[in-house]
Amino acid sequence: MSTLCTNIGDIRAAAKRIALHAHRTPILRCTALDQFLDAKLTFKCENFQKVGAFKFRGACNAIRSLDEAELQRGVATHSSGNHAAALALAAKLAGSTAHIVMPSNARAIKKSAVAGYGATITYCEPTLEARESTLAEIIENEGRVEIHPYNDVRIIAGQGTAALELMEDVDDLEIVMAPVGGGGLLSGTSIAVSESQPSIKVFGAEPIQADDAFRSLQSGVIEPSIEPQTIADGLLTCLGDLTYPILQERCDGIVTVSEESIVQAMRLVWERMKIIIEPSSAVPVAALLENRSQVPGHRVGIILSGGNVDLARLPWS
Amino acid sequence: MSTLCTNIGDIRAAAKRIALHAHRTPILRCTALDQFLDAKLTFKCENFQKVGAFKFRGACNAIRSLDEAELQRGVATHSSGNHAAALALAAKLAGSTAHIVMPSNARAIKKSAVAGYGATITYCEPTLEARESTLAEIIENEGRVEIHPYNDVRIIAGQGTAALELMEDVDDLEIVMAPVGGGGLLSGTSIAVSESQPSIKVFGAEPIQADDAFRSLQSGVIEPSIEPQTIADGLLTCLGDLTYPILQERCDGIVTVSEESIVQAMRLVWERMKIIIEPSSAVPVAALLENRSQVPGHRVGIILSGGNVDLARLPWS
Repeated sequence: MSTLCTNIGDIRAAAKRIALHAHRTPILRCTALDQFLDAKLTFKCENFQKVGAFKFRGACNAIRSLDEAELQRGVATHSSGNHAAALALAAKLAGSTAHIVMPSNARAIKKSAVAGYGATITYCEPTLEARESTLAEIIENEGRVEIHPYNDVRIIAGQGTAALELMEDVDDLEIVMAPVGGGGLLSGTSIAVSESQPSIKVFGAEPIQADDAFRSLQSGVIEPSIEPQTIADGLLTCLGDLTYPILQERCDGIVTVSEESIVQAMRLVWERMKIIIEPSSAVPVAALLENRSQVPGHRVGIILSGGNVDLARLPWS
Repeated sequence: MSTLCTNIGDIRAAAKRIALHAHRTPILRCTALDQFLDAKLTFKCENFQKVGAFKFRGACNAIRSLDEAELQRGVATHSSGNHAAALALAAKLAGSTAHIVMPSNARAIKKSAVAGYGATITYCEPTLEARESTLAEIIENEGRVEIHPYNDVRIIAGQGTAALELMEDVDDLEIVMAPVGGGGLLSGTSIAVSESQPSIKVFGAEPIQADDAFRSLQSGVIEPSIEPQTIADGLLTCLGDLTYPILQERCDGIVTVSEESIVQAMRLVWERMKIIIEPSSAVPVAALLENRSQVPGHRVGIILSGGNVDLARLPWS
């Protein structure tokens, strides 16, 4: 019997809640990649999602789950990346407000995106302690609702909607893959898949140089992410106490890959599919590239998590 | 009364001929670009076409128009770019063979693409004279059918199928835009649009530093393309005696744009739409960016012609 905090019903409810606000992103295929990787791949293109990442799904579901009084008070989070932009836009579209704590060293492009969506930004020292204490102060002073980037049932349910759409659009999948950082996307995916089509296996993919999720599932406790060194900058955080047990119960395995394979996979997708994906999105493709036997199936659905890249700083130029 | 060599019937026949072989490419939209450019844009994504460019449509139609004896003898052309790859693949898929004359200074990535599709390549000096004389010799020796990159009714009809699909998938277009080099795509588009939905206007877009088509429509004769200096390397050639009269009769205008606008438009599409387009594809977007009043309509369909870019040499890095 499942002891999970989130179930397929939550994901279906999230799908209804975000239907009018998030894009139903397209599915793409690529003959050249299929031949190269000896697989029949379908790609769920969350790089085409609003704010350029799946993060909008969870943020939108969280915001649309609030009552009137909470919307009035607004939301807050700390984030240096896609969750910040996603929450800012989701709040704005719902007529609410967002206050985002960003580390002072966040990339300029991320700062301007968040500001462009009308959020209030408070900068702090780039440490987890400073981020958490600054956020706690804002929440106390302004009475805002905290929306954690992944360790939140509303976020997990929202992220699971991508896999739901993938399974609606593609028949006969054997495997669904997603990258894993904090585990919001992978846990939502694991629930959506295991509860609606249990014959499909779910694999996570993770940089070997940020392999805390892999180690956590091995050891049986949440392992910290210690000084992760990876180009996949969306996958730096460790699992949360909500996402970890979901993966433990529902995820069929985590494949770790080298930095070299991530860059090669990213370039392969750019060159062959003509779409822009960020390094984190390339991690599941790298798993197929690196060791085909690690992914025991032919018909593989891959969730391409996002497409936010600094075009002036590419890893191959 | 039309005096054109190609008509809508030829384009519809081409659509049937290539249906099983070419991709029906997706249509994409982008809210951010719509807001930025004050338009309602729909993009026909030929960057997702086989070989990464619309050129496969024409090449495939030409090959599939041949009789058994001609298929046996095979085809030949001279090209340094997308037409070479398109003809090579189209020939291979039809069980025929292609012999391509390429200038010795063609980019390595193009050479390997053509070779990868199994074509025979003969290199020559990078002059038009050398290319034409080398091709003439091959045709005489091997009895192959010449397939010109644009000045060929089968090619023009094939390229027109992209606009046909665009109009099937999108209602209420006011304008269709395509880039113009030799005029194969733009003349096919002009026929498809003007003969099936005459209320829609067709505009070409051309680099101001390779503005021979613009000058030709002004002067009333085919003007040569003299030392064109543009990043849009698919648009260097001048019009042909088949494409020119079609544009004269059916195209509503040609908008010229600066190099700076082409690069800005290309980057805008990469950043906002998360898709890879080559500089030539960015030229119609640049026309909207540069001077919105030059494109007198709100609902604009743009044919994104291709996505073959050297990722290690981007114009902004």
